[in-house]
Amino acid sequence: MRRWNGWGDDTYSLPVQPQALQFLQQRIGNAIPFSDASWEQVCAQVPPGRLPAHPLIDTSAATRVRYSRGQSLPDWLALRYGRIAHFPDGVAFPESSADVSTLLAWAKQHSVALIPYGGGTSVAGHINVVDNAQPVLTVVMQRMCQLISLDRQSQLASFGAGVFGPDLEAQLRAHGYTLGHFPQSFEYSTLGGWVVTRSSGQQSLRYGRIEQLFAGGRLETPAGSLQLPTFPASAAGPDLREWVLGSEGRLGILTEATVRISPLPQQEAFHAVFFPDWEQAQAAVQQIAQSKLPLSMLRLSNATETLTSLTLAGHASLIRWLERYLSLRNCKEQKCLLLIGASGGRAQVSAAICAALAIAGLHRGVHIGKTMGEKWKQGRFRNVYLRNTLWQHGYAIDTVETACDWPKVRTMMQGVELAAQQSFAEFGEQVHTYTHLSHLYAQGASVYTTFVFRLSGDYETDLARWTSLKAKVSETIVRLGGTISHQHGVGRDHAPYLQAEKGELGLSALRAMARHFDPDQRMNPGKLFDTAQDAS
Amino acid sequence: MRRWNGWGDDTYSLPVQPQALQFLQQRIGNAIPFSDASWEQVCAQVPPGRLPAHPLIDTSAATRVRYSRGQSLPDWLALRYGRIAHFPDGVAFPESSADVSTLLAWAKQHSVALIPYGGGTSVAGHINVVDNAQPVLTVVMQRMCQLISLDRQSQLASFGAGVFGPDLEAQLRAHGYTLGHFPQSFEYSTLGGWVVTRSSGQQSLRYGRIEQLFAGGRLETPAGSLQLPTFPASAAGPDLREWVLGSEGRLGILTEATVRISPLPQQEAFHAVFFPDWEQAQAAVQQIAQSKLPLSMLRLSNATETLTSLTLAGHASLIRWLERYLSLRNCKEQKCLLLIGASGGRAQVSAAICAALAIAGLHRGVHIGKTMGEKWKQGRFRNVYLRNTLWQHGYAIDTVETACDWPKVRTMMQGVELAAQQSFAEFGEQVHTYTHLSHLYAQGASVYTTFVFRLSGDYETDLARWTSLKAKVSETIVRLGGTISHQHGVGRDHAPYLQAEKGELGLSALRAMARHFDPDQRMNPGKLFDTAQDAS
Repeated sequence: MRRWNGWGDDTYSLPVQPQALQFLQQRIGNAIPFSDASWEQVCAQVPPGRLPAHPLIDTSAATRVRYSRGQSLPDWLALRYGRIAHFPDGVAFPESSADVSTLLAWAKQHSVALIPYGGGTSVAGHINVVDNAQPVLTVVMQRMCQLISLDRQSQLASFGAGVFGPDLEAQLRAHGYTLGHFPQSFEYSTLGGWVVTRSSGQQSLRYGRIEQLFAGGRLETPAGSLQLPTFPASAAGPDLREWVLGSEGRLGILTEATVRISPLPQQEAFHAVFFPDWEQAQAAVQQIAQSKLPLSMLRLSNATETLTSLTLAGHASLIRWLERYLSLRNCKEQKCLLLIGASGGRAQVSAAICAALAIAGLHRGVHIGKTMGEKWKQGRFRNVYLRNTLWQHGYAIDTVETACDWPKVRTMMQGVELAAQQSFAEFGEQVHTYTHLSHLYAQGASVYTTFVFRLSGDYETDLARWTSLKAKVSETIVRLGGTISHQHGVGRDHAPYLQAEKGELGLSALRAMARHFDPDQRMNPGKLFDTAQDAS
Repeated sequence: MRRWNGWGDDTYSLPVQPQALQFLQQRIGNAIPFSDASWEQVCAQVPPGRLPAHPLIDTSAATRVRYSRGQSLPDWLALRYGRIAHFPDGVAFPESSADVSTLLAWAKQHSVALIPYGGGTSVAGHINVVDNAQPVLTVVMQRMCQLISLDRQSQLASFGAGVFGPDLEAQLRAHGYTLGHFPQSFEYSTLGGWVVTRSSGQQSLRYGRIEQLFAGGRLETPAGSLQLPTFPASAAGPDLREWVLGSEGRLGILTEATVRISPLPQQEAFHAVFFPDWEQAQAAVQQIAQSKLPLSMLRLSNATETLTSLTLAGHASLIRWLERYLSLRNCKEQKCLLLIGASGGRAQVSAAICAALAIAGLHRGVHIGKTMGEKWKQGRFRNVYLRNTLWQHGYAIDTVETACDWPKVRTMMQGVELAAQQSFAEFGEQVHTYTHLSHLYAQGASVYTTFVFRLSGDYETDLARWTSLKAKVSETIVRLGGTISHQHGVGRDHAPYLQAEKGELGLSALRAMARHFDPDQRMNPGKLFDTAQDAS
């Protein structure tokens, strides 16, 4: 069963190797485990619901707890310390667009705010109740998970928007197709969630971001249904798909989505290359990204992330041999790991990998074959379980991501890590920070930084530390010219920084658009931008 | 000098071969040439302007004529018959964003409507004065044509939005780069025009549509400046670039645009392949488009377009030999010509062409080498001059384009041609129709149809015939599930059909967005959607 206060399925745990714990202890100190609030304790905190009865709505305490929070660090703090401020008053599980439309009308009638809920994997507070003034209904889309239609000629598939990643891929695989959208949250996130938060998958270099995959669909809004027909391309005015992408529930609820699919690839290959240092590595990935090679993935870890990955990988003696070999090839303390992926026909895959390796070679890259790449692929949806295990040892993991143009990439990486270190230093704590570039573009790259730090055992203390971290890091991102999110969306946590990139006029236009579809402002209030200012 | 009542430069004419005229005469009858209204006659029709004097504004009759109409067929009818209904009251030539901002404030003060004008190549009535109730100022952006900045690392270049295609490419070429955006109007259209009408270039398969190339910029609106910063990608809410793309001047005036550029390709190659019939040809291009090969262009002509091209090409004896050869390979009356282009590194180009030819071979495609492709490349911006010459012989050319998913492509092509034929039949006239697929996608294709018909010598008669043609063809496009424009935009002529794809709710949202940036609705009134209904 899915964990109510952590990541993933409760039958699976990812053990932490002793040397990994030792590594963390050396870096940021010993942590002291503490016990979490129990399920019963949290359920007992749920206040009486304020919704009239409705056959589509479950108002049980257990359900209201389960759908109360996402996967951000403040969400974990709330869940683990038993400090969930607000619960939805009820949770609906619609099975059709008509059900959703019914719920919207009912919500208007009873002055209820609505939170659309996909898979609940948001790390930015998208699905939290932030304002408790009016009753809140969370609308869980997971029962709308069918493959509605498949057009092989146009390579289009329509799904209920609540379909989870693995279910979507399984339904397509039965027909020989894939969507190819694999965010790290893949196992527990939904198609609709990907669309409305502008998600990006690990193989976006081949398949595109969700913006390129989302061909049309249906949005149920308080002002009516918005149908988005499919065209291969159009010059007929602004593209309304682009209003739905990133709308984060403010305009309505996406109930169906048509996506561009691809035949299952003949082959997938992931190769690993080490570089002596960041400078060489970045020059190589920039050149590879700008060469328009038909690759599926590039993922470049900085030296600290490379060291951390090698340490956490286990297989200590094997890694020692690898490091000896790399050392002979000039890849020493500052070495950086690049993973290169390609998918498609066999010939295309090998040609693309060869061409990429040739460029890597120009920058002193050392190719070590496929083993590490294959390992990465096997573990790519499992590594996130480390969050659960480290928490049990008293450590928290948080991440932040942005994207910026090439001249800013290195400064951004250093700036974000430094901001986090300074933030923790103010509390007399240390943080272990490391970064990778997860999505490479001709224009620039996404910069994805991980923070590992000790938990205090006290909710207020940990929340204050995180609040400081988030503010300092976000201010750094904005100051250095990055977007406040490359792949996680805005939600609640990034909303204060949206104006920096949209401008006052742009933000007021987003508000006007939300008011057009949702005149009473009952759709996911407080997310993307502040509802309080919407009246302006 | 640029022709005031036709296409292009008046020092260049494209002669029509006698056998080409004979071909047309056989198909649609002899046409009788007639004389056009003179420059002096038209200038004498210009009424007194209604604008207060302003140093940035030229109110001379000659200038007001020059910037009064675009390149649509009704524009040509108006210009050639001397029946231009409305002229702008003045024409401004701003040289900076500050100038544009000044003009916007001045327009508000004096209750003046504004028409942004790029290169004046619109074929949908974007730059026409449709409502003369208030004074109208046309804002010509052509003096804002400088390369403002070049970021080699991120492959980004910022230009004044009024830069013409050749000037843009020349400024980039000096640094070793290209934008790679080559619509047929390239020589006389501008970057800003491309962006606000969602233009697509002939090599979009490699470089992308203007949507993929437009990375950021600056829009001056009645409500203030909207700055669009550049990011390689972002998940921070709806993408405001996508509101500017296709906005057709309704929100404001794009003054600067940053675009994604590429190094000049080592090599460009265009190959020609003939197929026995449409069925084989379409199956081949669909498979090639879905194979994700790094090509730059696919352009498939139907049998009538193939025949027309071969007839108009001249070189009759050469073509006869080609046809004998093709006939032996089963490409006879129904043969269809496919042009395949690739750009990039030498190895990449030859690999991509080889792979595409291999797929073509599976569908009985006959490769005839590069000659025809190279000829097409040489003539690609010259063929449009045929419009001038044919007019002198009493014939008009008009085109229409759409895009749809693969299952609809063939029906669309046949439906559009039939609708045109039926429309002319009602007037007892014939029309020569032919079609090509100009932009190929995994999901579908654009369908681009040309109509050649006789002029009557009478303005009202020709306008009535065109109005009927446009209505019948547009209704067919909508009925068969195509977009009302794949690459020319909406303007005035396609506005009645926009609701069919945006829906009532979507269209009202577009109106609300325009009101937000332009509360007085003075920006390009009547374009994209009816201003009259904007108050709703």
